[in-house]
Amino acid sequence: MCLELFYAWEIALFLKKGKKIQLSKLSTFIKLHSLSQRELKTRELKMSTVGNSTNIFWQESPIGKLERQKLLNQKGCVVWITGLSGSGKSTLACSLSRELFTRGKLSYVLDGDNLRHGLNKDLGFKAEDRTENIRRVGEVAKLFADAGLISIASLISPYRKDRDACRAMLPDSNFIEARFS
Amino acid sequence: MCLELFYAWEIALFLKKGKKIQLSKLSTFIKLHSLSQRELKTRELKMSTVGNSTNIFWQESPIGKLERQKLLNQKGCVVWITGLSGSGKSTLACSLSRELFTRGKLSYVLDGDNLRHGLNKDLGFKAEDRTENIRRVGEVAKLFADAGLISIASLISPYRKDRDACRAMLPDSNFIEARFS
Repeated sequence: MCLELFYAWEIALFLKKGKKIQLSKLSTFIKLHSLSQRELKTRELKMSTVGNSTNIFWQESPIGKLERQKLLNQKGCVVWITGLSGSGKSTLACSLSRELFTRGKLSYVLDGDNLRHGLNKDLGFKAEDRTENIRRVGEVAKLFADAGLISIASLISPYRKDRDACRAMLPDSNFIEARFS
Repeated sequence: MCLELFYAWEIALFLKKGKKIQLSKLSTFIKLHSLSQRELKTRELKMSTVGNSTNIFWQESPIGKLERQKLLNQKGCVVWITGLSGSGKSTLACSLSRELFTRGKLSYVLDGDNLRHGLNKDLGFKAEDRTENIRRVGEVAKLFADAGLISIASLISPYRKDRDACRAMLPDSNFIEARFS
């Protein structure tokens, strides 16, 4: 078994048994698995600039969306619930999550207020902060859908352009909007 | 069946059958499920301020981490792989994900560079941007762990204080650090 797999195996064992692992021989591992000069050159050619991030490289995962969907026996998507404060967004989000759970489907609620306790706690309520708040929730919802989950976003997003920007991140059939207007 | 459940049901059906849904009678639903003045008052009392977000309310979900873990038959956690560029972080992350998949475990790789294509594309490589980048990856990894997944974060995070801040978001046993140093 190659060392790379050995470490993956050790971590996997840890996760199974709850044991403490020692990743002490990583130096040998690094020597074996560091990218060669040629690989680094190829990588450099594939590097791109996105927004303020320069020289970044898209890493493909060997386990893709389809494999995860097969494992979960469901299709990942985003259900985007929007409306004003107190309109019933969270109630619907929670009911849907419960309903899906009883059918053995895995969902996760991304509640706008809850996310402002963590990921978005640096944002206030100015127009640009609201837009950024929605953008980030959209990006996270997309990651969850990619992971194979039914991600239920529940937040105030009054502007069509912000919602459309989130919708544009996913194929149409994977984005369902429910708006309390 | 109450209307709230009806809509949840409709969305669940849509997700199952891929049909288009009509959420046309939402006004009745809103009337029935809008929060009463008393509920709104109670909610106001529970509102808090976190960072730049004022008057936010933590929404508890009826389906919690334990239920999701039971559904997935695994424990959600964060595996934090760090090291310099080209050190083998992504290789290990991908191997681990593949290894877990063969055992029927659901994981998701949060690759630093990949996230800079989306969620973190507004960030550059200044010190404060790097810190913010790590903070956001930590917050997202925490969400994935809460959703029941084994979230594998793979990114350059040279400063102990940044990693410790991420570790502090989760109980110790749910945060495993593998560092290529």
